[in-house]
Amino acid sequence: MFSQETYINRRSRLQADIGGGIILLPGNDDSGMNYKDNIYPFRQDSCFLYFTGIDQPGLTFVMDIDNNREILFGDELTIEAIMWTGPVETIASLAAKVGIKDVRPTSALPDFLARARSSKQPVHFVPPYRGDTTVKLSEWLDIPVAAIPQQVSVALIKAIVRQRAIKTAEEVHEIEMAVNTTIDMQLKAMELAAAGVTEIAIAGGIQAVAIAGGGNISFPVILTVNGQILHNHPHNTPLQNGQLVLCDCGAENAMRYAGDLTRTHPVNKKFTTAQKEIYDIVHHAYQSAADAVKPGIRFKDVHLLACEKLAEGLIALGLMKGNAAEAVAAGAHTLFFPCGLGHMLGLDIHDMENLGEEYVGYTDTLHKSKEFGLKSLRLGRELEEGFVLTIEPGIYINPMLNDAWQAAGKHTAFINYEKLAAYKNFGGVRVEDNFLITADGGRKLGRPFASTANEIEQLIAR
Amino acid sequence: MFSQETYINRRSRLQADIGGGIILLPGNDDSGMNYKDNIYPFRQDSCFLYFTGIDQPGLTFVMDIDNNREILFGDELTIEAIMWTGPVETIASLAAKVGIKDVRPTSALPDFLARARSSKQPVHFVPPYRGDTTVKLSEWLDIPVAAIPQQVSVALIKAIVRQRAIKTAEEVHEIEMAVNTTIDMQLKAMELAAAGVTEIAIAGGIQAVAIAGGGNISFPVILTVNGQILHNHPHNTPLQNGQLVLCDCGAENAMRYAGDLTRTHPVNKKFTTAQKEIYDIVHHAYQSAADAVKPGIRFKDVHLLACEKLAEGLIALGLMKGNAAEAVAAGAHTLFFPCGLGHMLGLDIHDMENLGEEYVGYTDTLHKSKEFGLKSLRLGRELEEGFVLTIEPGIYINPMLNDAWQAAGKHTAFINYEKLAAYKNFGGVRVEDNFLITADGGRKLGRPFASTANEIEQLIAR
Repeated sequence: MFSQETYINRRSRLQADIGGGIILLPGNDDSGMNYKDNIYPFRQDSCFLYFTGIDQPGLTFVMDIDNNREILFGDELTIEAIMWTGPVETIASLAAKVGIKDVRPTSALPDFLARARSSKQPVHFVPPYRGDTTVKLSEWLDIPVAAIPQQVSVALIKAIVRQRAIKTAEEVHEIEMAVNTTIDMQLKAMELAAAGVTEIAIAGGIQAVAIAGGGNISFPVILTVNGQILHNHPHNTPLQNGQLVLCDCGAENAMRYAGDLTRTHPVNKKFTTAQKEIYDIVHHAYQSAADAVKPGIRFKDVHLLACEKLAEGLIALGLMKGNAAEAVAAGAHTLFFPCGLGHMLGLDIHDMENLGEEYVGYTDTLHKSKEFGLKSLRLGRELEEGFVLTIEPGIYINPMLNDAWQAAGKHTAFINYEKLAAYKNFGGVRVEDNFLITADGGRKLGRPFASTANEIEQLIAR
Repeated sequence: MFSQETYINRRSRLQADIGGGIILLPGNDDSGMNYKDNIYPFRQDSCFLYFTGIDQPGLTFVMDIDNNREILFGDELTIEAIMWTGPVETIASLAAKVGIKDVRPTSALPDFLARARSSKQPVHFVPPYRGDTTVKLSEWLDIPVAAIPQQVSVALIKAIVRQRAIKTAEEVHEIEMAVNTTIDMQLKAMELAAAGVTEIAIAGGIQAVAIAGGGNISFPVILTVNGQILHNHPHNTPLQNGQLVLCDCGAENAMRYAGDLTRTHPVNKKFTTAQKEIYDIVHHAYQSAADAVKPGIRFKDVHLLACEKLAEGLIALGLMKGNAAEAVAAGAHTLFFPCGLGHMLGLDIHDMENLGEEYVGYTDTLHKSKEFGLKSLRLGRELEEGFVLTIEPGIYINPMLNDAWQAAGKHTAFINYEKLAAYKNFGGVRVEDNFLITADGGRKLGRPFASTANEIEQLIAR
């Protein structure tokens, strides 16, 4: 938990931004797997956490701006419940720590909201992403579940994005802790990877590192010898020498801030020439993007710069041909890099994704492209000091996509399909780090960690 | 996946049991942690899985008994989605494997159900435990969310419980695989436990074993030096010599059947005399219960037998006094054992808990007690051949409960509060194994595994 002042200031600013009415922030509940009480690890709603700092299920926070009241609704545990859970800090005590003085039982919430609605106070809420929250909003606000999406508050979304997009020093410190644990996860993956070991065994091992770090994984581990499949999850498949292991993973620290790193390394500890050639192209694109980020530059342009570097490298290698800038303008590079260069990072791995990419990554004047490739770029807008984001270019050889493009005769001026046939089983390479946008550039977060092919080889040789 | 015949037979029997109308089995969806697409590990609904065998999100299964139709509603992935997920088996192919011939898009479901309702077919469904399912039922059946609990089908609940309560040989085989992986988890906990190591580090390590086993944990790991707190979850607390580690954990195998074992062992590899004395009492109660289970005996009576054995031991030790049977009749033993002896086990760790304990663990004539202790006994009914259940007695020294009872002067005829004061920081001991009820007794599931204090000491000495 940060200091009381942090949370009080965040809330004051939000209330000033919205100006009137009710701000309704439902916290998350425990989430049942196969029945109500067999629960997934609890994950608080990030907006609730940002403004209250309280990482417990079953709470709802209300700011009544018109009447200058902040109320936390929730129920203290009974003595008998504590027999099962052990002693816990009371909600009242937690609330006091973050400057919230008014705590009421959950049963008082429906009436409170009914009165607010009858006195025509607008009730601002953000889009729910869990059915449990949808059900609560429907009951509290007497809105049919299907009508909830139309009643979310764009004003509240925009006000929250304005605050959460800019990370303070204390937030950057937390993210950096998560990045460091993520480096430990990557090291564990490299340590465990060997011919015959299954993907799931390694994935389990790195998840253990995240849990031991005091938090959890920040997103489902991607650990695969099929790196060309962008969100491939680990399988019961033994690694083989000659393959590349792509590991894209992240820890969430105890404060719920996230890290997100990708490294790609060879199972038998030495890259083949072909693997190294592709790796070097990806790393050059990564470094070019890392060198380019700074306040004022559009991340969409950094993305296109990285794409051009990828295309240049692929042209030099003979997998593409023609002029790199023209190839990127035509979209030919998306055969190898069909996704975006990066995304915001913070309390969420795709920070604030639940609030809507159009508000987080784009603006009223810059809208997301609908083109293949660019439509997967979550962040396009001008960077500002205090943004934290990922840079994660890659080269993916996806035979299914290759075949479809070749059959359709797509971009034959830029793609050398004959040469590409030899790379059919190559897989994929991605390099990813996390960056804070500073006054004049980008600062890589976390302790130093191998990223070039040579550094990776030296690291895993030990 | 079992054979086609297994699923066809299960469904035929269910349809015959219900006799008419529509059976609606919504599968689970992916469940978002902090936004929709950042998902928890997928867990299928156990009823859906039992009758269809299909372990994928986004599906709904409908049996229209009146018209002799079985329809699986769901949407095949688009080519573009497969770029992110990799090639996947089609829903149609999976459905064919389990004998379901009619697959339709999800968009056809609301109309299908609307027609069924307009022709007055009853729609049978079981209680939802996820908000997402509640929202779907509300929309499909045009029932306000608050009214859904009143419209669940008790006939369907009872028919499902009748089938799922009796495990077939192929199900027992799967449970036994999960138990064996759970033994691996227990061994890993013993291997990792040492002074200075944190609870969460060990919990992470054993979770990795479950994942590497091809499944996941079957419930949140309980790994604690505060075993007296029944559902205490692991903390960032280093173990100390002299403490007991209570580890209650389970693996879910690839088929989603669960194991659930508890072992308690000393951090520094040797039980103290006091620890061994308590351990031996618990183990004797455990063994007495294990020897007593057989078809026809009420599990409530097995529970009371174990309670009496605990009381006898505590009387011999001087922590209780008087006559054991009288102490148990009065409920005095619940100071040390405030919970139930065990529960059904199968696709769910508390099998079928979402269907309601009154149907799973009790009957129309045997209702659950409301007394402290017995009200936490999930299973009371007469055992039948084919039941799989846990036996898990324990002795817990809970200072908060002790103080409350002593202050209230509770059961002073049976509790020796003066002697108990010396055990204030003792913690808790539990021993748990999983048993199949056979024609004439109970068979412990899984490979042989240390359970007495001496066996545990010998095991961890290695």
